[in-house]
Amino acid sequence: MSTEIDPFHAIAISRAAHRMAAEGRSIIHMEFGQPSTGAPAAAIARAHEVLDTDGMGYWESMPLKARIARHYAESYGVAIDPEQIILTCGASPALVLALSCLFAPGDRVAFARPGYVAYRNTVKALHLVPVEIGCGEAERFQITAAAIERLDPAPQGLILASPANPTGTIIAPGELAAIAAACRRRGIRIVSDEIYHGLSYIGPARSVLQDEPEALVVNSFSKYFSMAGWRLGWLVVPPSLIDAARARMGNLFLTPPSLAQHAGLVAFDCRDELEGHVSTYARNRALLLAALPALGLKRIAPPDGAFYIWADIGHLTDDSMAFCMKLLVDTGVATAPGIDFDPVDGHRFMRFSFAVSTDRIEEALRRIEPWFAGQLFR
Amino acid sequence: MSTEIDPFHAIAISRAAHRMAAEGRSIIHMEFGQPSTGAPAAAIARAHEVLDTDGMGYWESMPLKARIARHYAESYGVAIDPEQIILTCGASPALVLALSCLFAPGDRVAFARPGYVAYRNTVKALHLVPVEIGCGEAERFQITAAAIERLDPAPQGLILASPANPTGTIIAPGELAAIAAACRRRGIRIVSDEIYHGLSYIGPARSVLQDEPEALVVNSFSKYFSMAGWRLGWLVVPPSLIDAARARMGNLFLTPPSLAQHAGLVAFDCRDELEGHVSTYARNRALLLAALPALGLKRIAPPDGAFYIWADIGHLTDDSMAFCMKLLVDTGVATAPGIDFDPVDGHRFMRFSFAVSTDRIEEALRRIEPWFAGQLFR
Repeated sequence: MSTEIDPFHAIAISRAAHRMAAEGRSIIHMEFGQPSTGAPAAAIARAHEVLDTDGMGYWESMPLKARIARHYAESYGVAIDPEQIILTCGASPALVLALSCLFAPGDRVAFARPGYVAYRNTVKALHLVPVEIGCGEAERFQITAAAIERLDPAPQGLILASPANPTGTIIAPGELAAIAAACRRRGIRIVSDEIYHGLSYIGPARSVLQDEPEALVVNSFSKYFSMAGWRLGWLVVPPSLIDAARARMGNLFLTPPSLAQHAGLVAFDCRDELEGHVSTYARNRALLLAALPALGLKRIAPPDGAFYIWADIGHLTDDSMAFCMKLLVDTGVATAPGIDFDPVDGHRFMRFSFAVSTDRIEEALRRIEPWFAGQLFR
Repeated sequence: MSTEIDPFHAIAISRAAHRMAAEGRSIIHMEFGQPSTGAPAAAIARAHEVLDTDGMGYWESMPLKARIARHYAESYGVAIDPEQIILTCGASPALVLALSCLFAPGDRVAFARPGYVAYRNTVKALHLVPVEIGCGEAERFQITAAAIERLDPAPQGLILASPANPTGTIIAPGELAAIAAACRRRGIRIVSDEIYHGLSYIGPARSVLQDEPEALVVNSFSKYFSMAGWRLGWLVVPPSLIDAARARMGNLFLTPPSLAQHAGLVAFDCRDELEGHVSTYARNRALLLAALPALGLKRIAPPDGAFYIWADIGHLTDDSMAFCMKLLVDTGVATAPGIDFDPVDGHRFMRFSFAVSTDRIEEALRRIEPWFAGQLFR
């Protein structure tokens, strides 16, 4: 029999939210890490063209691989051969591909707790052994080189995420270099999830490839490029793993969506529109950071990047799922329960996603302010 | 370290073909199982609408699940709850999902040899043990109930494919029922790849769900619906596996492409256009079956379905890869070497895909007729 893995609890919240919307309730969706904006206009225009002129068979875009390689040179000063880029159907299968290329059943793979739910579940589904590194407020919920040194025995692998989900914290450049060095010394292979790169409020995030050319990097068009439902991502592999990664891609997934590859290439040149979205998120972040403490949510790691706020609600509940569901039912504001991200302490945390328009954030705050006041004094 | 798996050799042929095309050579692509037609016109029209009106976030189409469930009722007389349908990014990840839900590392999974290359490689990548059932001309290259009875020990799983790739043969209804009964008796779980359903020249193929409601069924929009690059498929799971399959889908793959789900729903109502493609394939099949014996290719199992011809070229070569590459270089006709489908005997087989227009088939025959004559007498 296969391994038991957990569901996304936020999906249950979202389903309830959609049922309520169908019944006429006004819902504000802050439960998923999904931009409310669509793809850049020029990318959509390109998709219209392709729909009318291309048979859309199985296809891998060499121009897109070259464009992504150029992005690594321009944004990080890292030289990547386009052949090192494997185009995938989003970041999730890119992570599956990375773990499958590097590890065999029984291998231990470490990652931060709290962290993205799919790290734990994908590791388990592939019959690898999850090693959770508990990261508290003191470390801004992030992995440190010291934590890597303390792991005994050394795991075979480490998943890094910076900016992280659910906290948005970024690992400082010096610390990232120290983590890479510790992993090299201890023989730990790094998979870096850089899906939130481009969404930073403290200056650009550093790629692990700047410190460790042998690392595997996961990225996608779902966040910065605002193309979640297009299902396009990529994996960067070192030259020694190109054949293994290609063989897995061809057999397990075949090819990424054809239309998304055409549109994604154009999206790279839509910086003004995309930076406009980042400005919106920055405004939303400022609004929430200003308002939440007054609601009693004082223990927050200010998100350096991504579009999440991870808030301690331990003074209000020890059941984050019930809390988020009640918040939804009472106010129409959908959020994610902490248990998705932290099986140990997540019952006393929740996550707000602020990837919506600023007027939705303002409306959400109008609704939840009296509600939180009521929770405190009930 | 992870498992070594094989590449698709046809991809090397295809790359060479594209290089030759770039140099100005006229190429006929018969190396992949990919319709040369695009999606139905109404599906494309719907995609244009959605591009202009929908943000295309992470999304699962409930109407599409309901439509697929209706298809099982109408086409097979099988009652499926829409909740049993898991929408995927094509048939390849649907197979990954199926194997991951059912099996754990070390479990033995059987399938026919010759067979689709990804069965062997996906089984190996998931650290399952491949059990190849050699199927010869006498069994029309298909699995039989007798072959299942002979397996010792019984494997945990069986992958069925009817119509099959690379042969196009269909398992007769009585034999399929007998296979299902043998598997039930021996505790073997069935995963049925029904991706070529709808493409049949001897009457509709039977779904394994008509004989075994506990089977998992893989299907996709890539073949009959002519939407390969849209990357949309589905997996049917029994009610007992819905939670396991959903958890894996959410973690390993997240959601299927949004646009493809909208277009796929419309494609279900484009039967006239799609049946027109089937008529083209039927014409192509007849042309090839009439012409190939004169080229010395006399050992062919007439394909009941799909769009492939599996031809014995043992009298001409014992290196199908070199043979197909020479055929390409000399004539511009790209085909697939047998070694992709059969690691034991595939060096003396090749596969023609006839999912192209009839005039391309005619042109291919004009080119390869003198070439094969030259091979025989050189």
